[in-house]
Amino acid sequence: MSTQPPAVLTIAGSDSSGGAGIQADLKTFAAYECYGTSAITALTAQNTTGVQGVHPAPPAFVAQQIRSVLGDISVRAIKTGMLYDADITHAVVEALRGGFNGSLPPSLVCDPVCVATSGHSLLDPEAIDVLVTELFPLARLITPNKSEAELLLSHHGLPSGITSLEGMVAAAKNLAQFGSGAVLLKGGHVSATLGDVDRVSRADSTITVIRHGLLGDNMEILQVGVERTFPKRLVVDVLCEQGGVSLFVRPFIDSTSTHGTGCTLSAAIASELAHGKDLKKAVQNAVAYTHHGIETAYPIGAGHGPLNHFHSMSPRSIHRPTKDNRHPFTKKLIQGNAGEWKEYVEHEFVKLLGQGTLPRGPFIHFIKQDYIYLKYYARAYALLAAKSSTFTAIESATTTILNVISEIATHKSFCNTFGITNEELEDTPEAPATTAYGAYLIDVGLQGDSTKLLMALLACLLGYGEVGLWLKKQASLPNTWVHIEGNPYKKWMDDYGGEHYQGAVKLGLELIEARALQDPPSQMRFEEWRHVWERCTRLERGFWDAAMAAA
Amino acid sequence: MSTQPPAVLTIAGSDSSGGAGIQADLKTFAAYECYGTSAITALTAQNTTGVQGVHPAPPAFVAQQIRSVLGDISVRAIKTGMLYDADITHAVVEALRGGFNGSLPPSLVCDPVCVATSGHSLLDPEAIDVLVTELFPLARLITPNKSEAELLLSHHGLPSGITSLEGMVAAAKNLAQFGSGAVLLKGGHVSATLGDVDRVSRADSTITVIRHGLLGDNMEILQVGVERTFPKRLVVDVLCEQGGVSLFVRPFIDSTSTHGTGCTLSAAIASELAHGKDLKKAVQNAVAYTHHGIETAYPIGAGHGPLNHFHSMSPRSIHRPTKDNRHPFTKKLIQGNAGEWKEYVEHEFVKLLGQGTLPRGPFIHFIKQDYIYLKYYARAYALLAAKSSTFTAIESATTTILNVISEIATHKSFCNTFGITNEELEDTPEAPATTAYGAYLIDVGLQGDSTKLLMALLACLLGYGEVGLWLKKQASLPNTWVHIEGNPYKKWMDDYGGEHYQGAVKLGLELIEARALQDPPSQMRFEEWRHVWERCTRLERGFWDAAMAAA
Repeated sequence: MSTQPPAVLTIAGSDSSGGAGIQADLKTFAAYECYGTSAITALTAQNTTGVQGVHPAPPAFVAQQIRSVLGDISVRAIKTGMLYDADITHAVVEALRGGFNGSLPPSLVCDPVCVATSGHSLLDPEAIDVLVTELFPLARLITPNKSEAELLLSHHGLPSGITSLEGMVAAAKNLAQFGSGAVLLKGGHVSATLGDVDRVSRADSTITVIRHGLLGDNMEILQVGVERTFPKRLVVDVLCEQGGVSLFVRPFIDSTSTHGTGCTLSAAIASELAHGKDLKKAVQNAVAYTHHGIETAYPIGAGHGPLNHFHSMSPRSIHRPTKDNRHPFTKKLIQGNAGEWKEYVEHEFVKLLGQGTLPRGPFIHFIKQDYIYLKYYARAYALLAAKSSTFTAIESATTTILNVISEIATHKSFCNTFGITNEELEDTPEAPATTAYGAYLIDVGLQGDSTKLLMALLACLLGYGEVGLWLKKQASLPNTWVHIEGNPYKKWMDDYGGEHYQGAVKLGLELIEARALQDPPSQMRFEEWRHVWERCTRLERGFWDAAMAAA
Repeated sequence: MSTQPPAVLTIAGSDSSGGAGIQADLKTFAAYECYGTSAITALTAQNTTGVQGVHPAPPAFVAQQIRSVLGDISVRAIKTGMLYDADITHAVVEALRGGFNGSLPPSLVCDPVCVATSGHSLLDPEAIDVLVTELFPLARLITPNKSEAELLLSHHGLPSGITSLEGMVAAAKNLAQFGSGAVLLKGGHVSATLGDVDRVSRADSTITVIRHGLLGDNMEILQVGVERTFPKRLVVDVLCEQGGVSLFVRPFIDSTSTHGTGCTLSAAIASELAHGKDLKKAVQNAVAYTHHGIETAYPIGAGHGPLNHFHSMSPRSIHRPTKDNRHPFTKKLIQGNAGEWKEYVEHEFVKLLGQGTLPRGPFIHFIKQDYIYLKYYARAYALLAAKSSTFTAIESATTTILNVISEIATHKSFCNTFGITNEELEDTPEAPATTAYGAYLIDVGLQGDSTKLLMALLACLLGYGEVGLWLKKQASLPNTWVHIEGNPYKKWMDDYGGEHYQGAVKLGLELIEARALQDPPSQMRFEEWRHVWERCTRLERGFWDAAMAAA
């Protein structure tokens, strides 16, 4: 019924405090609507103030976790984080090679974690060789920060010491020689300004600058009252791939909520790749996701707190439809005022009608007022047509108007069988219950959008459908109280329980379910729709109350 | 700016395949907008077909993880899952006692995991005594399934063998003697029907039945074409607490996506408790959450797949505002068509006006057409008032109309200074660009809801605000191209850059940001709003193009 989330695997350490490691990765995958799996390389006991202990897993057990996942679940991307030591790194490489029969793993993002934000060393120096010679060649991207880049470069006797944007670009190019598909050198620990970006990009025309809106160009109205220091400190991430170098530019956020930033960024890139984005777009989006994660973080713990991984998600008010629950929206509307709904669809009027004992007076009152109501109903559909955006929607609303008009003839002859002449029908004084309901439809149509109007129109359509089916079901039970044969209201029951009317009910249901799925309402908007539904439910009940009172 | 998510701790095993253990727990916490932390008792290498290996953590290291979390983060609820053996269980108990100085931990939900869905044994038999005597007394709730309940009862020499709903109620009452605050005996493996529920609840008036809408009463219209077998198989969870017994009734779902159901349910209950719900409501909601998780599951893996933990979440189109980003919605609207926006607010007309070199012809055309436009603008605000739901909103729209009307006098005198008489102003033929923009406002007002109309009205308000501030900022730069002294359009610049107009801009910004926060739009609805914004941006540009062409 909806898109299957792509599966993603993280191979990394566990952070008990939930802000980094596989916990940050799984949270990021979830925020990206990916299905998260994990192979844990080492347990850490840590919190926002530091690492209190590390317990590595046996290398063979790390490999076993990877095999368990890859042997059963088709992962679309993989990220590696803290690999702890040379043996575990080697075991990971072997398990990845085995899992894809020697082919390159899909979209492997390698975050070469060596040192935690807190300064705690997270990778055995002996592991660096294994990382570079065995794992990097399998990777689509490696994502070192300044310290990791310097460590990797100096370990290989290359110039390290990154202090400027020029230095970052040179380092990224050097790191690209290590065999990975591309390098993202993260700029969080290197100060840069717009002047630096301009200078570096002017000096080399193959460099692309991606500012992607985070800097707020042409938004003076949003800067009123904001203290601004110039030159503003920026974070510039440098992507070096075959096609050239890209600079991703964003404002630096002065925040302590940065625990797990690197884990989060690489997990976000892996998620983007799992969704099929190309690398540059993946990095651009993942950088923005991480930026907003820091910006929207809640204070947690006494030290460097975690990002807010779920800034991009909100609770949905209605489930997606499934095989077993094809109408989650309508179900929730009905459940939302179950008591009122029951009093409407199982109204005394309906029960007496089913028994065939409803006096003629109330029924005559009802069908005369119904005639007046149908005029409001047709006009409300005309308003719906006027509020529609597509020819399909305009046609659908118009068809309903024409159906109502053609049923008017049937309604008149039906009224005639109860002794009501056409003149009497036309001269019927409008009852307050009819005005209330009819004018409410028009008011909703004026006030809200087309979906809100549909809520009002469908409470009527679906309610009569429910009444029709309920009577039909009661009639089918053993020792039923419903009388079909000789019941003066048989035709009315047959009409609403019948195929023609139920076909319209089905279309109506499909229409509002599709609306709710395409344009899922916020809690507040759902509550507005539910309120319209409830009002109509009460107005329908009031319509029958008025008929009963007219006895 | 928004509510801090409560922190929750899970103490359980790790499931590499992501469907059970701490992974299921962290996913559930996230879906419940809780902040998830974890202490891992044992690593498992597993997938949807079974468990391929288990690597327990040293008991002292499990305790250390718990201490790291509790020592830094205030958790509002805790759940325990697989505790593996007696030593780890004991270490957990000690760490929990230490973490709360001997007081009861907050809302501890203990899922006494003994056997996995796949049949794999997950708890050392010797651990059962420690579980019962040490951990249960700390727990607000224990959540055994049928097998676990039978194991616990028979281990203590009590009648086990649960085969009926009566048996479940009796077993739950016996388990309640084990020292926990309450018992939830899960019914997934005991068949029950509505008949059973009626019989059991009729026999004991202290039993409450909670059907909570999942059964679909009064929803015949939603059952059309659905195959129904009677008596329908139900799942009944039995909650036994001090106040009495409650039965939570829902339809059984015939699904293989049940891996991690128990973990998920207990994590969901802990999350509900962390949000302050009372136990009965917590169980009711958590049961529904878990039910929908199974119902909406995607197929993952070859065996028993995981639930869909994020059925209750959807991507949000706009971030929450933060200290550093107070206008995320407006920012996204502007970014959504940055190019068009720039061409509007930095229009040639505006540049020439700032330089003081704009010929009088275009300016006169502009202020005459602006007069006509303001009539549409006032009418559109009248439509906004008519579409409002609160007196505050009606007042706000009406105040704007009155402001426009009072500015008309100023506008007339301003026009007079450019030699335009009042008669000439009234007789101005309406230019097509004016009709396009004005009639578009009215059309949006007719077609959509009040928020959509606000989008159209604010593109004008905010755009002129941006123009005013942009000119002001340019004027303040060294060697500026803007001329203030002797500029014939100085008053116009002063007005739009001035305090009075910018005050209206600020109110407008706050209004739409508040709307977007209270009623977060779906991706589709945001796109509709962005489209209105873009149309108005183009229409504004067209308005100035027309003025320039009138030279």
